Amino acid sequence: MSTIIEPKVLKGFRDFLPDQEIKRRKILARLEGVFRSFGYVPIDTPVLEYTEVLLGKGGGETDKQVYAFTDHGNRPVAMRFDLTVPFARFMASHYSELPLPFKRYHFGKVYRGENTQRGRYREFMQCDFDCVGVDSPSADLEILLMIRGAFLAIDVPNITIRLSHRGIFNSFLQNRGLLDKSVEILRIVDKLAKIGPDQTAQLLGDLASSQQVREILAFIGATTSVTGGNLEVLARLEELAGGPTDGSGRLREILLALDTLGLSEDFVLDSSITRGLDYYTGIVYETFLNQLPGIGSVCSGGRYNDLASLYTKEQLPGVGSSIGLDRLMAALEELGTLGTEAAGSQVLIFSMDSSLGTTYHRVAQALRTEGIAAEVYLAPKKMSAQFTFAEKKHIPWGIFLGPKEEAAGTLQLKNLETRETWDDLQISQVIEILKR
Amino acid sequence: MSTIIEPKVLKGFRDFLPDQEIKRRKILARLEGVFRSFGYVPIDTPVLEYTEVLLGKGGGETDKQVYAFTDHGNRPVAMRFDLTVPFARFMASHYSELPLPFKRYHFGKVYRGENTQRGRYREFMQCDFDCVGVDSPSADLEILLMIRGAFLAIDVPNITIRLSHRGIFNSFLQNRGLLDKSVEILRIVDKLAKIGPDQTAQLLGDLASSQQVREILAFIGATTSVTGGNLEVLARLEELAGGPTDGSGRLREILLALDTLGLSEDFVLDSSITRGLDYYTGIVYETFLNQLPGIGSVCSGGRYNDLASLYTKEQLPGVGSSIGLDRLMAALEELGTLGTEAAGSQVLIFSMDSSLGTTYHRVAQALRTEGIAAEVYLAPKKMSAQFTFAEKKHIPWGIFLGPKEEAAGTLQLKNLETRETWDDLQISQVIEILKR
Repeated sequence: MSTIIEPKVLKGFRDFLPDQEIKRRKILARLEGVFRSFGYVPIDTPVLEYTEVLLGKGGGETDKQVYAFTDHGNRPVAMRFDLTVPFARFMASHYSELPLPFKRYHFGKVYRGENTQRGRYREFMQCDFDCVGVDSPSADLEILLMIRGAFLAIDVPNITIRLSHRGIFNSFLQNRGLLDKSVEILRIVDKLAKIGPDQTAQLLGDLASSQQVREILAFIGATTSVTGGNLEVLARLEELAGGPTDGSGRLREILLALDTLGLSEDFVLDSSITRGLDYYTGIVYETFLNQLPGIGSVCSGGRYNDLASLYTKEQLPGVGSSIGLDRLMAALEELGTLGTEAAGSQVLIFSMDSSLGTTYHRVAQALRTEGIAAEVYLAPKKMSAQFTFAEKKHIPWGIFLGPKEEAAGTLQLKNLETRETWDDLQISQVIEILKR
Repeated sequence: MSTIIEPKVLKGFRDFLPDQEIKRRKILARLEGVFRSFGYVPIDTPVLEYTEVLLGKGGGETDKQVYAFTDHGNRPVAMRFDLTVPFARFMASHYSELPLPFKRYHFGKVYRGENTQRGRYREFMQCDFDCVGVDSPSADLEILLMIRGAFLAIDVPNITIRLSHRGIFNSFLQNRGLLDKSVEILRIVDKLAKIGPDQTAQLLGDLASSQQVREILAFIGATTSVTGGNLEVLARLEELAGGPTDGSGRLREILLALDTLGLSEDFVLDSSITRGLDYYTGIVYETFLNQLPGIGSVCSGGRYNDLASLYTKEQLPGVGSSIGLDRLMAALEELGTLGTEAAGSQVLIFSMDSSLGTTYHRVAQALRTEGIAAEVYLAPKKMSAQFTFAEKKHIPWGIFLGPKEEAAGTLQLKNLETRETWDDLQISQVIEILKR
């Protein structure tokens, strides 16, 4: 006798049971529908790539978390830790074959050996979408419209997209002789919502004079201190930054367009939004659920001026976003917008007599032809077990057919929730009732 | 200046460009639709698992191909090489929470460090579906109906599902004192289609007398030698096997049901179908495309009596199948049934004047609201570049709107293939034409 192996799963990795997986697929399908409606197309890339391709010459914090090893051919390989780096590599490989501007989305699992104690997963799904090969206000506007469309499509219309522009902040810093410290300063400001203004000021104190710190806080606090809408806030930021710049002009154009399209309410100009990475060069944005502001941004991104510089001399500017599906799913669960879907089919055909199996399958096929998902109970078990099965799978309807009905060519239909019952129906009548 | 890293992909791994990925997703969506209509539900499992869980005490041929390594916590881990082993582990973990019989499908990438010279991939997608927790003719019948439904749904109605039953072959071998060699014999017979009867006979000659080899060849050749349909072939097999058995009784029940349902034509009883693995204990089957028999089976499987014995003492009988998506996609490509889908949207709104960006996005939004996928050309480029873009993305319609149309509140619509043009349209008229 062989011993039993414990069927355990690695820490930070998960099975998805049908109820969860159905919900996840529903959300992905709706997001996909929106992306497709904007002309975005799907791609896929390998989970495993050359380590050098994913990590470059490497050495950062991410590297320690990467699942890297040596394959059978002695090649150093690694599992992708995000979808941005593979996309950069993809564009460097394929830009000449693709229609530019190239608009793609990519749903895929990524891998990070993170500390799981903070509620993080080591395998998780990302949903990225980017428009590459163009630097225009029209492209910036489109991605913002698409984010809004995506949240509408998943029944979460109450969102706020907080946006800003890296260029204005940089002009502001330049005016104060702080441009060389911009990366550090932007990283600190990015944490404002998490650590609060006092600690932000303290951290900034190591990089700037107390007068400068006050000015930085005034700059990133303009959204709340200025009376008026986004355009008034923008005017104040321009003033603090020493006048209009290319960046502020771009942002004004976008804000005016959102106004014209009647969408201003969902968008807030917030100069405390910086996105930590130095990668971004234009607009940056984060998306918050108005009913759950505490969970932080569920969709973030911005404009960058060179996606694939690690792999090609071809300059590829773009604008893109990423949705962390796990955080989003947790939020939707909390909001109760996911619903309890029928995890199986719409109708269970109960097995009352095992000699009638063929008839049961014929009835099921007839329903499927009409677009009604139907399943036959496949084992010769007691009725009580079959009812429990229907309940566990949230199947709302039951069909009962014994020798009596077989002889008469009829069916009994039952609403399994209300227990309402229809006797002696023809299959066409069953279809009629179920289609209502 | 940093040096450029070559954006290369590992051998046996692939990027999926939009045209391919759209087709792949279309096929998966249709398969999913069929599975859902039968009450099958999706699950997912981790790509990475404990090596011991995936390989057991290990040592076989597969093991050498597995991507296995040690993770940050010094745990031996491996990437899944199929979806069957993870499903067995999944069932051992969750059977008590799940409604039994449990019917699931699973689409997922799997990894094998195989020799790529034979046109094999090291990362490929499998589509598995199984019904577990019941051993009944009804369950066997259902999976056969579902396979047929799946191929209908992907526009390949001309298939032949060749099926057999392990039990009949075993009775036949037992009658000849060859049961202890059944695994080896079944493996040889499984290769009949590949190596032909002569080589099969030669290989069998090492295991059986020449009289026995002739009998085995008669047994596996019954489909062609017997005049009549599946039931006549079955009668002949029973005769060769020394009389009816549980297995032949089960098979008769299934064949009669297929007859009653009017589907006999698509199913052929073929005792040369054995599926190499000793894992199978009941019906076994392979699916062939009538127009491309040479590519071999595109969907195979069978009944097993104990799925998860490696991980649990709970006995879980089931019946299941696997579709190799790569082979199937290659076949569909060859058959030309995949079509050239619009890889982008239905309409391109040309950018004639960059000051009209907001108007373009407004028009696009109006079309999307009506379910028409529409995209705005996002860069201020020449018309010829925009036409090329539309062509590359197979976008069939163009909308043109310059200052003149903006002033008049109208649009020009053009069929980009036929060049037919409609001037001075209202948006409602555009929608009307596009919806035709």
